[in-house]
Amino acid sequence: MGESMTIKLTLSYDGTHFAGWQRQKNAISVQEELERALFSLTGKNTTVVGSGRTDAGVHAEGQVASFNVEECSIPPEKFAVALNTILPNGVRAIKSERVEDSFNACRSAKRKTYRYSIYNSKIELPLKERYAVQIEEKLDYKKMQLAVSLFVGEHDFKAFAASGYSAKTTVRNIYSFTVKKSGDDYAFLVCGNGFLYNMVRILVGTVVAVGAGKIKLEDITEMLKTGKRDKNIKTLNAKGLCLVSVEYI
Amino acid sequence: MGESMTIKLTLSYDGTHFAGWQRQKNAISVQEELERALFSLTGKNTTVVGSGRTDAGVHAEGQVASFNVEECSIPPEKFAVALNTILPNGVRAIKSERVEDSFNACRSAKRKTYRYSIYNSKIELPLKERYAVQIEEKLDYKKMQLAVSLFVGEHDFKAFAASGYSAKTTVRNIYSFTVKKSGDDYAFLVCGNGFLYNMVRILVGTVVAVGAGKIKLEDITEMLKTGKRDKNIKTLNAKGLCLVSVEYI
Repeated sequence: MGESMTIKLTLSYDGTHFAGWQRQKNAISVQEELERALFSLTGKNTTVVGSGRTDAGVHAEGQVASFNVEECSIPPEKFAVALNTILPNGVRAIKSERVEDSFNACRSAKRKTYRYSIYNSKIELPLKERYAVQIEEKLDYKKMQLAVSLFVGEHDFKAFAASGYSAKTTVRNIYSFTVKKSGDDYAFLVCGNGFLYNMVRILVGTVVAVGAGKIKLEDITEMLKTGKRDKNIKTLNAKGLCLVSVEYI
Repeated sequence: MGESMTIKLTLSYDGTHFAGWQRQKNAISVQEELERALFSLTGKNTTVVGSGRTDAGVHAEGQVASFNVEECSIPPEKFAVALNTILPNGVRAIKSERVEDSFNACRSAKRKTYRYSIYNSKIELPLKERYAVQIEEKLDYKKMQLAVSLFVGEHDFKAFAASGYSAKTTVRNIYSFTVKKSGDDYAFLVCGNGFLYNMVRILVGTVVAVGAGKIKLEDITEMLKTGKRDKNIKTLNAKGLCLVSVEYI
């Protein structure tokens, strides 16, 4: 056996036509496309580990993946360019680098940043529809700014996770959560040590419900305490979500 | 015959999968979708006049169209909402209003504003690819700002039009032409009394050639004089182009 290396790969993809990150039967995933491209390059079956799953339809500007290669003539930093000659439209490797063998894109991840995009309009706008979600109700920007701030810190986010996925604990730490208005567009940026299933989409759905006057700011505090979600809160569509970056120490 | 009305319609569309504005055989155009939707609504064949053709792949935030209706129970301002229940994904009516019968979306147009979007990157970025064009070469922003200013005013734009389309004159008046940098994104905004075939895509291609150091600022002045285009200038891809608005007096 030759020398083995661990490669860290940073990726961007348009999630519209993918069944999400994780490999599955009967649907095309980003992981499958990446593993297929690596097989073409190296001639070996290679398993790629992602920083986490992104659901069907979710986009990524900076997803991180790791994999091992053995006896490979491609220099670590050239993997990105080489993969891009094989990967299909909609997925591109941004950067590749050799890292310590203890590196695991999932287990070593310390912080993740997601962006969620909405636009406020009575009419569906074709040029915004691909990467943002239309909200018809009038929104109170100041209330939404207050709402996001309530989630910052360590909390039990049980009320803000989809059921069906088990996590050891529902406590997560949100380092920052902001909303920025630009015309009729609102961009939510949230950074935390990890997120429960559908959590970002539910958090933004909660903030939008506050902005639309369907629930009150106090309801957020209450839900964080009781772990029970108000029925007026929607889990917003995957297409508005984008994994911006994953940080490692 | 009942009362006839002229309706002005403002439209937005994602041009990616359309063969452009104008109706044609064997390909789906925006005009055809609109006329089909109007037939569903009114039960009558209606011809729609656009402010101008947009080519295959070109997007619109504010295309304007006009048409006549007779004996129709739909109030003028409700046409937009009614059409949106029928139009396919990717095309939406933003506004409808009754205008004077002398109004013709094409002949009455006084100014048009287009935006052209590029992004500067060695790597193709999937989340920017749909509405912008990748430029790999390093770009000199200051030189591009100077370059756009050279086109402002009344000039003979013969050198900056695709051949094959006849126009009575190649003289056009550009009221403003700017370029704005935001990170690695550049947005060109150009407003004029009219544009020759492919003119905006060639103008931006010219400015990018200056930014990349392939031609000089003086070459623009020369081309405006001689009417001959430098061979280093590319007609940039349609997908970066968007018709922002059409103004009428």
